[in-house]
Amino acid sequence: MLRRLRDEVCFANQNLPRAGLVTMHSGNASGYDPETGLMVIKPSGMDYDRLTPEALVAVDVTSGTVLEGQLKPSVDLPHHLFLYQNLPNVFGIVHTHSNHATAFAAVEEPIPAALTAIADEFGGPIPCAPYVDNEGDHIGRSILAHRRERCPAILLGHHGVFAWGGSPREALKAAVMVEDVAKTVWLARQLGRPADLPDKEIEKWWDRYQHRYGQ
Amino acid sequence: MLRRLRDEVCFANQNLPRAGLVTMHSGNASGYDPETGLMVIKPSGMDYDRLTPEALVAVDVTSGTVLEGQLKPSVDLPHHLFLYQNLPNVFGIVHTHSNHATAFAAVEEPIPAALTAIADEFGGPIPCAPYVDNEGDHIGRSILAHRRERCPAILLGHHGVFAWGGSPREALKAAVMVEDVAKTVWLARQLGRPADLPDKEIEKWWDRYQHRYGQ
Amino acid sequence: MLRRLRDEVCFANQNLPRAGLVTMHSGNASGYDPETGLMVIKPSGMDYDRLTPEALVAVDVTSGTVLEGQLKPSVDLPHHLFLYQNLPNVFGIVHTHSNHATAFAAVEEPIPAALTAIADEFGGPIPCAPYVDNEGDHIGRSILAHRRERCPAILLGHHGVFAWGGSPREALKAAVMVEDVAKTVWLARQLGRPADLPDKEIEKWWDRYQHRYGQ
Amino acid sequence: MLRRLRDEVCFANQNLPRAGLVTMHSGNASGYDPETGLMVIKPSGMDYDRLTPEALVAVDVTSGTVLEGQLKPSVDLPHHLFLYQNLPNVFGIVHTHSNHATAFAAVEEPIPAALTAIADEFGGPIPCAPYVDNEGDHIGRSILAHRRERCPAILLGHHGVFAWGGSPREALKAAVMVEDVAKTVWLARQLGRPADLPDKEIEKWWDRYQHRYGQ
Repeated sequence: MLRRLRDEVCFANQNLPRAGLVTMHSGNASGYDPETGLMVIKPSGMDYDRLTPEALVAVDVTSGTVLEGQLKPSVDLPHHLFLYQNLPNVFGIVHTHSNHATAFAAVEEPIPAALTAIADEFGGPIPCAPYVDNEGDHIGRSILAHRRERCPAILLGHHGVFAWGGSPREALKAAVMVEDVAKTVWLARQLGRPADLPDKEIEKWWDRYQHRYGQ
Repeated sequence: MLRRLRDEVCFANQNLPRAGLVTMHSGNASGYDPETGLMVIKPSGMDYDRLTPEALVAVDVTSGTVLEGQLKPSVDLPHHLFLYQNLPNVFGIVHTHSNHATAFAAVEEPIPAALTAIADEFGGPIPCAPYVDNEGDHIGRSILAHRRERCPAILLGHHGVFAWGGSPREALKAAVMVEDVAKTVWLARQLGRPADLPDKEIEKWWDRYQHRYGQ
Repeated sequence: MLRRLRDEVCFANQNLPRAGLVTMHSGNASGYDPETGLMVIKPSGMDYDRLTPEALVAVDVTSGTVLEGQLKPSVDLPHHLFLYQNLPNVFGIVHTHSNHATAFAAVEEPIPAALTAIADEFGGPIPCAPYVDNEGDHIGRSILAHRRERCPAILLGHHGVFAWGGSPREALKAAVMVEDVAKTVWLARQLGRPADLPDKEIEKWWDRYQHRYGQ
Repeated sequence: MLRRLRDEVCFANQNLPRAGLVTMHSGNASGYDPETGLMVIKPSGMDYDRLTPEALVAVDVTSGTVLEGQLKPSVDLPHHLFLYQNLPNVFGIVHTHSNHATAFAAVEEPIPAALTAIADEFGGPIPCAPYVDNEGDHIGRSILAHRRERCPAILLGHHGVFAWGGSPREALKAAVMVEDVAKTVWLARQLGRPADLPDKEIEKWWDRYQHRYGQ
């Protein structure tokens, strides 16, 4: 029943190193199937190239109980769970320590909306939540408190990135684009101080990208 | 009839991610066949590795009507059309958000002619057009107004790069070289302030590259 | 008898260029089998893609005598030997000149504990030993004098990185993570001055990673 | 007769893009066989992945006459010729515009001997010749005038890198290491001002690398 979700989550996890977002095991992807109420997530500390759909761990989203899987789930499971429980229409989540985005997180700065690509994908700046520790629902609550409404990603101070979307693939795309725009803005910051796009201009790109882009 | 053009445009699009110029779907290539008056362009939001020559969309350059293709063309179609209508001897166009070049665009600075490679390929600095929105022919007109005569590329403020040439392959080469020289000049700017080559010196390299280089 | 150790050390060496840690021949990995008292190490100046388990050189850890192998061992053999003789529970060592970590070494600065990933893997800052020459046991003694107890890596001033662990694979992981966190901290340093995590917070991440992470 | 030299020069050229030293066609490698008095070099503007040993152009080193080959030689042929005519024991030459090294060249600065790897390979700083144009023997004479005796590479102001050695493979290694150490020193320069190694220390590393390293 979860076959398709397992395939999608496996694909998203395997693409984390291919897209240059993770080193060794520093990231994970999950997906949530609202019909069954189950989510599947990467096992803790497993190599991406040894990952199979069957190795993923299935968890009941309401109770947090592991239902299927011989392996222990990612230690970041509580944060994924909290987000599925609290963010409507989110069915895929990715967590990374991708380098350029995490550099902004290390100095606790948002990624400003200085590029049309940021307006396209994120509809404004990508916020940065202040540092929190890894206990209980601290990370989940911090994301909820500091995210910007229509922006599918957030930086976590001194830590990394969470990104989400309507599927594991959409969450992966958001995580990839966070790192890509973080890189360009980081590069621009070494040349000068790039101006933010005015809100009115951001709306034009966001509108085009959300309503006229794609098939 | 458009078979060869479709192959060339497909090749150029597929090489955008291979050359590191695009992330996810952030770029597109097109080609124009003056005999039939048709251009072909990437479909909107399609993965590069799933692209086939047949999936490309064919458009009448004079009217802008889509003539062949089940898929919607790139949302950047109007800009490609405008350039084919207004730039003589241009039969290939590439648009990217490549990171180093877009960093210069984010601070609205040209890439100065500080390297012999820039003299070779671009015959002087690569200009940067000020920011414009994505409506109608704004981007096309801005490129026309701000390009430097013999330079086959331009930066668009806060946005990215357009590059062109006598074929899709030439446009691809121009886009690749924009990013390469942007990277080197960006690196040099972190060490000091690289001097521009004098105009007289630029002419020597341009002349050699245009008239004695290649087979 | 050393078959498995040879395989593990060969794997670690071959992954040095794959992980982007070495250029040409600028690094080496070794492993130590306490039961036989032997270590195996990369031959000097050999291409990683031509390396086979059989080509590795076996050395008696107590005496330093080469026991098996037609080829000369790495010129860094004395440093590996010294560390196996003096660091308990170390059965794998990796040496690299990986770029970002060596940049910190070039200015003789530690990598500060500004990221949760640094707390996870290294339990605090990664120290930098001052420059020493390559004679005798100078490098080995310097590592012993300047390492931080639970941190499995150190920078060597103007030189590069040594990393170690309970197996060649663990040493490889430490070397990979040194470069990864060096890159992120280096990037952050260009945006501002990232604050160190407080010691109390470092302990939380270290504890989770050491005791709850993995299978 | 030139079969082996053609293979070696083809290998060196094909490794330029694999090692990340060239973009599109921005580099070339050659080799010289003193017994026949012939050198072979890359044809002008040819894709590296289409290069075959047979496509290389053979040239008489004394006269500069093309002896074999349907294709035009690299436009950089005069510089390669001049160096073979004037540098004893040089049988391989590589020219690139590799990014980090060329960034130093853009500001006309040498790469200082701040790393043990620079002492190993180059025995001191890698000098930078001031800008010269591309006419006649200007580049060749400038290299001769500004090179440092035992250093197998030089930066050319606002242009790029020449590297050489006892074979095309040695020249390739020198070109690869120039870019690698340029990258690390460039990174270090963004953290502070790395001190040069004292001459006495440079000698120790140089001596070890030249006399005890390798098989």
